[in-house]
Amino acid sequence: MSTGLKLDNPAGLPYTDYEREFDFPAAAVFRAHADAELYRQWIGPRGLTTRVEELDCRSGGSFRFVQHGDDGVEHAFRGVFHTVRADEFILMTFEYAGFPDVVTLEFTRFEDLPGGRCRLTGRSVYPDLEARERYVAGGMESGMSEGYERLEELLAGGPAQRPAADG
Amino acid sequence: MSTGLKLDNPAGLPYTDYEREFDFPAAAVFRAHADAELYRQWIGPRGLTTRVEELDCRSGGSFRFVQHGDDGVEHAFRGVFHTVRADEFILMTFEYAGFPDVVTLEFTRFEDLPGGRCRLTGRSVYPDLEARERYVAGGMESGMSEGYERLEELLAGGPAQRPAADG
Repeated sequence: MSTGLKLDNPAGLPYTDYEREFDFPAAAVFRAHADAELYRQWIGPRGLTTRVEELDCRSGGSFRFVQHGDDGVEHAFRGVFHTVRADEFILMTFEYAGFPDVVTLEFTRFEDLPGGRCRLTGRSVYPDLEARERYVAGGMESGMSEGYERLEELLAGGPAQRPAADG
Repeated sequence: MSTGLKLDNPAGLPYTDYEREFDFPAAAVFRAHADAELYRQWIGPRGLTTRVEELDCRSGGSFRFVQHGDDGVEHAFRGVFHTVRADEFILMTFEYAGFPDVVTLEFTRFEDLPGGRCRLTGRSVYPDLEARERYVAGGMESGMSEGYERLEELLAGGPAQRPAADG
């Protein structure tokens, strides 16, 4: 069994640390981050539709995606990949267009566990403590938690895996 | 007269904040950051020679440069530009190859002042407090201070402005 998201916002330090285990190998979970068609299907909370405009997941590459819910309002996100090591490590910047110039640095590590499972560990680094509060208030934890549930359903061939036309 | 570097490492927070005024307009100081041939001539402390291998100073671009002193030992630095707004703002990642994966986020703002002068303000954001201590111990403040002195000499047409063959 996988375990849910563990997330920590340490007092007085502008970080969010998190950890999530998956019932799939590191290579599969990495691929779900690096492949635009897979990424589109799980990133963010349930009920949102994602359009990936660019996902060039290599050191020096860029990404941009746009999400909308039932209200049709679009929310855009973009960043650059500083370092990508396949199946192991992604280090990228991240910006929500609604918080311009409030850019975070996102460290994500993928590590195989026995039994074909893996552990993802992450750290988000914020440019100030207020930036973290804005992301927390915006529903960061539930969005990440639901996103990783969707990721696991996707890898299991479950409800998240549907053709783009339904997305 | 320009004023020297003001640098602050706030206790318990993984930032370095700094400020430097120049006797030149924001556009000139920005250009010294964005033009490889100019950048080569001032970045870092005195006594080092810099080879800029890439400086694609635009949102989504990358940079890489290599420095060496009299001992000939090479030190490489690289990063990606998340946002560049000409004459105003650079937001980039930064990594010294000697500290692999210890990547910082660098915010630099350029602001015109009366009399053809400008103010540069910066924040370096570190992935942990130990990373800042490593950079501080590595001579960050004197390196930045001397670099900005060289930048001003370069813009004044002084000793830093020399042909590449002498570099």
